[in-house]
Amino acid sequence: MKVYLDNAATTAMDDRVIEAMLPFMKNHYGNPSSVHSHGREVRTAIERSRKKVAELLNASPSEIFFTSGGTEADNTALVCGIETHGIKHAITSPIEHHAVLHTLEVCAQKGNIQLHLLDVNEKGEIDLGQLEELLKTYPNALVSLMQANNEIGNLNDLNQIGQLAQANGAFFHSDTVQTMGHYVHDLKSLPIDALVAGGHKFHGPKGSGFLYVRKDKKIHPFIHGGAQERNMRGGTENVIGIIGIAKALEIAYEDMSGHEAHIKALKKHFIESIKASVPGVEFNGMSGDIDHSLYTVLNVSLPPSEANAGMLLFNLDLAGISASGGSACSSGATVGSHVLRALNHNPERDSVRFSFSRFNTIEEIDYTVEKLKELYAVEA
Amino acid sequence: MKVYLDNAATTAMDDRVIEAMLPFMKNHYGNPSSVHSHGREVRTAIERSRKKVAELLNASPSEIFFTSGGTEADNTALVCGIETHGIKHAITSPIEHHAVLHTLEVCAQKGNIQLHLLDVNEKGEIDLGQLEELLKTYPNALVSLMQANNEIGNLNDLNQIGQLAQANGAFFHSDTVQTMGHYVHDLKSLPIDALVAGGHKFHGPKGSGFLYVRKDKKIHPFIHGGAQERNMRGGTENVIGIIGIAKALEIAYEDMSGHEAHIKALKKHFIESIKASVPGVEFNGMSGDIDHSLYTVLNVSLPPSEANAGMLLFNLDLAGISASGGSACSSGATVGSHVLRALNHNPERDSVRFSFSRFNTIEEIDYTVEKLKELYAVEA
Ligand SMILES: Cc1ncc(COP(=O)(O)O)c(C=O)c1O
Ligand SMILES: Cc1ncc(COP(=O)(O)O)c(C=O)c1O
Repeated sequence: MKVYLDNAATTAMDDRVIEAMLPFMKNHYGNPSSVHSHGREVRTAIERSRKKVAELLNASPSEIFFTSGGTEADNTALVCGIETHGIKHAITSPIEHHAVLHTLEVCAQKGNIQLHLLDVNEKGEIDLGQLEELLKTYPNALVSLMQANNEIGNLNDLNQIGQLAQANGAFFHSDTVQTMGHYVHDLKSLPIDALVAGGHKFHGPKGSGFLYVRKDKKIHPFIHGGAQERNMRGGTENVIGIIGIAKALEIAYEDMSGHEAHIKALKKHFIESIKASVPGVEFNGMSGDIDHSLYTVLNVSLPPSEANAGMLLFNLDLAGISASGGSACSSGATVGSHVLRALNHNPERDSVRFSFSRFNTIEEIDYTVEKLKELYAVEA
Repeated sequence: MKVYLDNAATTAMDDRVIEAMLPFMKNHYGNPSSVHSHGREVRTAIERSRKKVAELLNASPSEIFFTSGGTEADNTALVCGIETHGIKHAITSPIEHHAVLHTLEVCAQKGNIQLHLLDVNEKGEIDLGQLEELLKTYPNALVSLMQANNEIGNLNDLNQIGQLAQANGAFFHSDTVQTMGHYVHDLKSLPIDALVAGGHKFHGPKGSGFLYVRKDKKIHPFIHGGAQERNMRGGTENVIGIIGIAKALEIAYEDMSGHEAHIKALKKHFIESIKASVPGVEFNGMSGDIDHSLYTVLNVSLPPSEANAGMLLFNLDLAGISASGGSACSSGATVGSHVLRALNHNPERDSVRFSFSRFNTIEEIDYTVEKLKELYAVEA
């Protein structure tokens, strides 16, 4: 049996997404910037995709910019937000994705900003009181806090953070790569200046993404060149990527609560079965709290075991189960996770992130828990 | 009849490229950074693509970095080349693509460099004597000169420029977007530090590209995030884009001289027929010189004509012919071309860029010249 439980790293493309992309590989090959008929038909498709994304998020098409992925979108929002708005202080947390953390660190190294890291407790939670204090000390700062953590599933309340940011004149960016397509985003009501998406996290293509920037917080382009994306991003558009991410988002919104219910049931079943199967099992961050965590992620902390020490992912892989030790960008080994380190996770316990999608089944969960039971029974 | 003669803007994908990409849309969806089997099979495919590109260019795989296109690759080479090597002066020409020109202008506006523009004559030619003088006045500069101009087809001798750059300690970058896949690049013998490609210019996918940076001139990353591309570019890889651009380059190299002969014959036929059909026709830049210009581009300057003034591209489009007034990134109107402006082109003459690929036929050329003859016969 082959079981894919690494959906926070990337997801399988939906067949309908592939179907939507194919005509733009085979037939409609014009450059969307060309004014002739070959170009116009592709321009129309791109703008239709932009309109669709904007509608779903309750935003304006002029606020949506397609990028090569979540990382480029994060870089654009942060580097250009800071530059355009003359920002001198940035506030973030030590458990952000490297697309945010490294980008802000480089801005700080260049002397463009001073970087302030919020404390996190052993569950990975930040303290909004500390955030408010910093915002008052450094008005007009940039705040970058992710909506959901990709490793431990912790959720931040964008509404609350956004209100604090707004009250203190801050530019509020959120890395929403793990939540886009999994939760509803209503950008008319959310007090947020920039958010981002990566298509491959919700059954769209890798190398596709978008950036939302609120109308009244416009920023300079990050990639300079032609006049594409309303002068906001030079470079011939990744047409199939744009068609694909818009279609994937459309599908995600068609039955989001159905998908959520299905995936939550899988996660709940996983939590219950593994508790019954592996004594001493724990869950990292908030991920074990079914009602207060990203429903696609469960980060399991297993009791110290000589047979599995440092080998757990490998053992699962041998059993046909794909899971992850952290973000896919790192080596995959638990030791590499800056998130678990920030939580002072006991390094003698092995951790695995299981992450689910609407394509997973109860049988796959049962198989996986059964394998974990076997692996940990050896020494029980 | 539908005739596509805008191949310098973008090309149709080769069916074999699509075939190579499809399995990575349908079946192999893992994240190449994941260590499990789903990830490893994709990682293997990416590294095989990198190796293939490196082999074709006689470079090392560690010198090839995949990007989202030519524009991002240009931005990376220029912005990060300047930063990493502490460069204070950049030398370029006024007829470079905006991906180079705008990027360097922004670097200059920020006060990071002083920008020096070479003169061009009415044929768009630069003066290597002036380049050498500037290089001696400002040692350790950055030189960015494109191999072939996308509008007027002028060719620069990378070998000569590279030797001048090397002798004066300069970092030499060339925008090779229009020549990659159309000419052989042997990076062991070419004295060049960085060059770039966009897959969609040689029958690969839009949104794919790569950057070559010579081993001993390493630069910092432009997009920060995960450890992808050997820490040189954060962001989940555009897997299908990478598979596609490598396959397209492989196909291009399989019979490059055959393609060149076919396309050159089309261009030669175009030049001869239009000369015989439209009195007063001229060719912009060097593009009319079959042996000393990019063989895919012919930029035709037509005599002043009331019926066609500002309407020529539109009239051609009505006849089913897709061509361009300049780079696709601008509006497509002749007036928008910074290149023709730099050549002091007579604004009363309409200019059209016809650009060819191996998919074009003699019949398409005959049809196009016939239409031009009709359009200009009105007032003849
Ligand atoms: C000479 C030149 N440089 C750069 C580019 C930009 O490449 P891309 O559109 O792949 O970003 C183009 C194509 O538009 C070009 O013709
Ligand atoms: C929270 C978060 N932010 C950013 C990214 C980067 O997105 P992409 O890989 O599309 O560049 C990821 C995925 O790896 C992520 O999980």
